[in-house]
Amino acid sequence: MANSKLTRKLNCTPKIVVLRWGHRPQRDVRLTTHVALTARALCASGFILSDVKDARIEETVRKITMHWGGTFSFEMGTSWQGSVRDWKTNGGVVVHLTAYGENIQTSDVVSRIKILKKDVLVIVGSQKVPGAFYSSDVSDFNVAVGNQPHSECSALAIFLDRFFEGEELAQDFEKAEIKIVPRKRGKEIESDVEFS
Amino acid sequence: MANSKLTRKLNCTPKIVVLRWGHRPQRDVRLTTHVALTARALCASGFILSDVKDARIEETVRKITMHWGGTFSFEMGTSWQGSVRDWKTNGGVVVHLTAYGENIQTSDVVSRIKILKKDVLVIVGSQKVPGAFYSSDVSDFNVAVGNQPHSECSALAIFLDRFFEGEELAQDFEKAEIKIVPRKRGKEIESDVEFS
Repeated sequence: MANSKLTRKLNCTPKIVVLRWGHRPQRDVRLTTHVALTARALCASGFILSDVKDARIEETVRKITMHWGGTFSFEMGTSWQGSVRDWKTNGGVVVHLTAYGENIQTSDVVSRIKILKKDVLVIVGSQKVPGAFYSSDVSDFNVAVGNQPHSECSALAIFLDRFFEGEELAQDFEKAEIKIVPRKRGKEIESDVEFS
Repeated sequence: MANSKLTRKLNCTPKIVVLRWGHRPQRDVRLTTHVALTARALCASGFILSDVKDARIEETVRKITMHWGGTFSFEMGTSWQGSVRDWKTNGGVVVHLTAYGENIQTSDVVSRIKILKKDVLVIVGSQKVPGAFYSSDVSDFNVAVGNQPHSECSALAIFLDRFFEGEELAQDFEKAEIKIVPRKRGKEIESDVEFS
């Protein structure tokens, strides 16, 4: 219980799941891994690698979750159409991150998403996405993390940071085997963290 | 002058330059490209690919800057020691992004950096970084964008978003040939933007 005073638990309702579309195993393994780890570290509840399987990504995500704690679902190979349909059937909303969408800084789009208090499926593209992603059949919101080209990884990070209002970076991860103790200098790890 | 009413110009003093350490050309080309494009899109002034050259990254960054506007310096192959020494000699501060550092959410580290009103060199690692990075000889601040493993790309994005307080995502880029008009649905591009 050494750290119980410091324990913070993010209220994970509503939950966010990240769907990565357009992963190309030959090119994207590291980038998609970073997108998945960003989702996990910034308190998304799970990750869907749509339409393709890549066991290397699954293995990395499972290992990180095992050692660093928390619960994080991982799914791959399911069609994006099926995932979107199921999500909507279950009452969730779908957010598509795209440089063409409403600017996260100059519009009130994050407030309009949060006020719904529904679970959010965040679609993160890669190569050119199907035109249908922009339509209301798929996306309830098209959100631009700035309207300049940069990175789906960065866009996801800032979306999650804005959605969870920064609290996601202060969260404790349950049942962690490894835990960093933040320091001004050097590295400190607790590897004997008590299971909660 | 069609968009003059909407023009926002970020006050770019102090400026930020991003130094990417540990780039491995065989593995990291896409990830490092995303780090560089994140730096540019989120209003860093330039990018240093330290200790190694990679013409593919330089070409991508130059093309994006040419078409999408703004000014953004690109340098590669210089030693990290030389860059850090020059930066400090010129009165700048050095920030090392690392999961082991002070938590950006639970500490006041960003305020303590900003209050100095100095130019900032942000060191972004890749593979395991030299121990010297954590020392005051190199880094004035070790900053953790959360204390979980995720992505240097995401960490940089959130650091810049916090440092510039979101204004970087609303900034106009001068002399852009291409410009996105944010929309709730579909894509709109102005490719005939007047040079400013």
